[in-house]
Amino acid sequence: MRKILVANRGEIAVRIIRACTELDIESVSIYSEADADSLHRRLATESYCVGPKLSKDSYLDMISIITIAKKTGCDAIHPGYGFLAENSDFAEMCEASNLIFIGPMHETIALMGVKDVAKDTMKKAGVPTVPGSEGVVGSVEDAKKIADEIGYPVIIKASYGGGGKGIRVARDEESLVQNYKMTEQEAESAFGNKSLYIEKYIENFRHIEIQVLGDYHGNVVHLGERDCTIQRRMQKLVEEAPSPILSEKKRKEMGETAVTAAQSIDYIGAGTIEFIYDLNEDHFYFMEMNTRIQVEHPVTEMITGIDLVKMQIKVARREAIPFKQEDIEFKGHAVELRINAENPYKNFMPSAGKINEFITPGGYGVRLDSACYSGYVIPPYYDSMIAKLITHGDSREEAIQTALRALGEFKIGGVDTTIPFHTNLLQHESFRSNDYNTNFLENNDIMK
Amino acid sequence: MRKILVANRGEIAVRIIRACTELDIESVSIYSEADADSLHRRLATESYCVGPKLSKDSYLDMISIITIAKKTGCDAIHPGYGFLAENSDFAEMCEASNLIFIGPMHETIALMGVKDVAKDTMKKAGVPTVPGSEGVVGSVEDAKKIADEIGYPVIIKASYGGGGKGIRVARDEESLVQNYKMTEQEAESAFGNKSLYIEKYIENFRHIEIQVLGDYHGNVVHLGERDCTIQRRMQKLVEEAPSPILSEKKRKEMGETAVTAAQSIDYIGAGTIEFIYDLNEDHFYFMEMNTRIQVEHPVTEMITGIDLVKMQIKVARREAIPFKQEDIEFKGHAVELRINAENPYKNFMPSAGKINEFITPGGYGVRLDSACYSGYVIPPYYDSMIAKLITHGDSREEAIQTALRALGEFKIGGVDTTIPFHTNLLQHESFRSNDYNTNFLENNDIMK
Repeated sequence: MRKILVANRGEIAVRIIRACTELDIESVSIYSEADADSLHRRLATESYCVGPKLSKDSYLDMISIITIAKKTGCDAIHPGYGFLAENSDFAEMCEASNLIFIGPMHETIALMGVKDVAKDTMKKAGVPTVPGSEGVVGSVEDAKKIADEIGYPVIIKASYGGGGKGIRVARDEESLVQNYKMTEQEAESAFGNKSLYIEKYIENFRHIEIQVLGDYHGNVVHLGERDCTIQRRMQKLVEEAPSPILSEKKRKEMGETAVTAAQSIDYIGAGTIEFIYDLNEDHFYFMEMNTRIQVEHPVTEMITGIDLVKMQIKVARREAIPFKQEDIEFKGHAVELRINAENPYKNFMPSAGKINEFITPGGYGVRLDSACYSGYVIPPYYDSMIAKLITHGDSREEAIQTALRALGEFKIGGVDTTIPFHTNLLQHESFRSNDYNTNFLENNDIMK
Repeated sequence: MRKILVANRGEIAVRIIRACTELDIESVSIYSEADADSLHRRLATESYCVGPKLSKDSYLDMISIITIAKKTGCDAIHPGYGFLAENSDFAEMCEASNLIFIGPMHETIALMGVKDVAKDTMKKAGVPTVPGSEGVVGSVEDAKKIADEIGYPVIIKASYGGGGKGIRVARDEESLVQNYKMTEQEAESAFGNKSLYIEKYIENFRHIEIQVLGDYHGNVVHLGERDCTIQRRMQKLVEEAPSPILSEKKRKEMGETAVTAAQSIDYIGAGTIEFIYDLNEDHFYFMEMNTRIQVEHPVTEMITGIDLVKMQIKVARREAIPFKQEDIEFKGHAVELRINAENPYKNFMPSAGKINEFITPGGYGVRLDSACYSGYVIPPYYDSMIAKLITHGDSREEAIQTALRALGEFKIGGVDTTIPFHTNLLQHESFRSNDYNTNFLENNDIMK
């Protein structure tokens, strides 16, 4: 592999360019008209404007991206996360254009992209799944029957949903009928497909996911779990590894289950199997699989010492994974905080604009993944992430202490940030004592 | 320990404040009038102006520093490196003022501070030393006799020397006579004492030092070696751990020797035993001992996962070292590059002034220790260090690749820096193939 086009922007584009540079692979970055001053433009070997500011005209423009890749002599495309990362059509187009898509096979992306099909596939592979409809529900009447069987509350989910959209909870028949229609409408308008499925709603759970890695030589390993329970409206804000609630027995069981799941679909590259970890029953269920690098991949890198983006590239150029499951050692604890340009005092209202001061934390145990700098103007068209602050320590307590220290050093002027949110959260008794579930932020006013 | 005064400035003051914050210990920083905008001022719990710009009136003003420590209710002082770190009078004054000096006992500092006494002490403890005069040389005539015995070339050293000053090489009797007088004069003016001693001059050697750590409970361990062979005029520019030239056998031998040496003087806290590693004879000799934290301590932290500054504090509050020698694991390879405000194209001329752009590298494997930021004005009164760029990888090759990648990202505007020097060095064939000694920079024009 000689040259990779990085089909993304911001910190993840920078992350991928870094891996290319260290592997002596040339990189081509693409940028929208709104991203002319971005770091991902400057750090790549070459860089080209791919289109106007709106994502649909630039970072989602498959033809333009593939054209640039071909014209510049790239032999591969790395999609990052978001944008085209889980678009099986794009992966297929890459393949048809003789470009290596750095990710799983397009059939795998398609399979895992339809939520009820993915669930069914995993169930057949022996992975525990939440009781519910077998596949898509045909009508409100069917939905009522299934809900009676599995018992309320239930959750209604769009088959093609994602990003926290197309999901509603029903606590009785009346709300089921109402929410069924609303979710159907939302699914149709947001995902172009109104298919829904129903599951038992588990209220008291942690979000725990397993990182897997597969290659073209039949090897599949897992790299341990990440706990992403701290969420706001289903958006992750804090991630850590390992999960502080998991027993060694459950950890082993989840890891092995994830490997089985990945093997059952001949998974290639880096992927994540997300689980609902039911705190009442101490049992885990398949939630969904993400067939790409995740935002929170650095916490896994910190505790394993394995560079996941380099591994993606190595696997894509048909190298075998250079270690066995038993070689992977887990060391210490890592925490990642997503520092966004949002005002946590005003309901996390986005705060685009010019960063006029940017003093970053550093030193022992601190890693910063960012595409911002002093003088950079955050455009309002994309996500609001400023930086991922990752810390590592011997224990959870140490990683949190280092994170608090680093937050105190991090000075960002000109825009509002979520730094005060993270500072409050990391000092919160329930967070410190590990007593919380995914509803934590709904039930606690952290900014008070 | 409740509150520590940090008697230093710049990156090492920031480093110490970080350790305090993470240990929930309050910090008091002191700053000269030239350092009012410094980060070490801002990051401490409290901060006080200690005096005018010149070090002798501020960072070296023992009475003022101790007065601030007492007035603010500190119970300890951390001296960092340089300034008062190896001043046994200061350590003694701290003790007399009921302040814990975070370092070894003042008697140990005094003992290791006089180079010929230190050498003699180590020789008696069974540590290999370079053949030479037994203690101070009385006269030029004595010097000639000794040189005839051990053979030319010889090196003339000031007993109270340090920092690369008060050292001269003589290749024959004529140059011995000349240099003896010149070194004597320099020693008198620079260190207030004209005592000299003589050693066999070893020309083809690597600078390898061992980090040791002792506590009040009789424990002494070593944390492996650092290779600091890349020097310019005896100033270290690049440090790495482990040393790429050491066999496992020699590594073990040097570590054990360093522990024996430290035990022989009841060493407390973090210290470094520097060795001359003779490449012709494959043999090591005691050079000197530094009784403080070193600039290059992070490379040891990266490969051991042990926070040395926190360990200094823990030992000073009489905790036992929480691990045994056999528990210390060495993982991967780390490189530190000293990024200085100097022009490598103009004989490393210092370049003070305003930093108007400061875009720092980050991501996997990168650590940055710095007290600079965009808009910071580097004062001309102190050392020229802008940042220590530290990288870690599975192998030396990986650590170097990450360092090169990080150097490419590091944008410092407004002042000249040594970034181009490091970029050239890290790509130099002799450096990559590990074929160099301490004369490397004298014999190779890296900037050509």
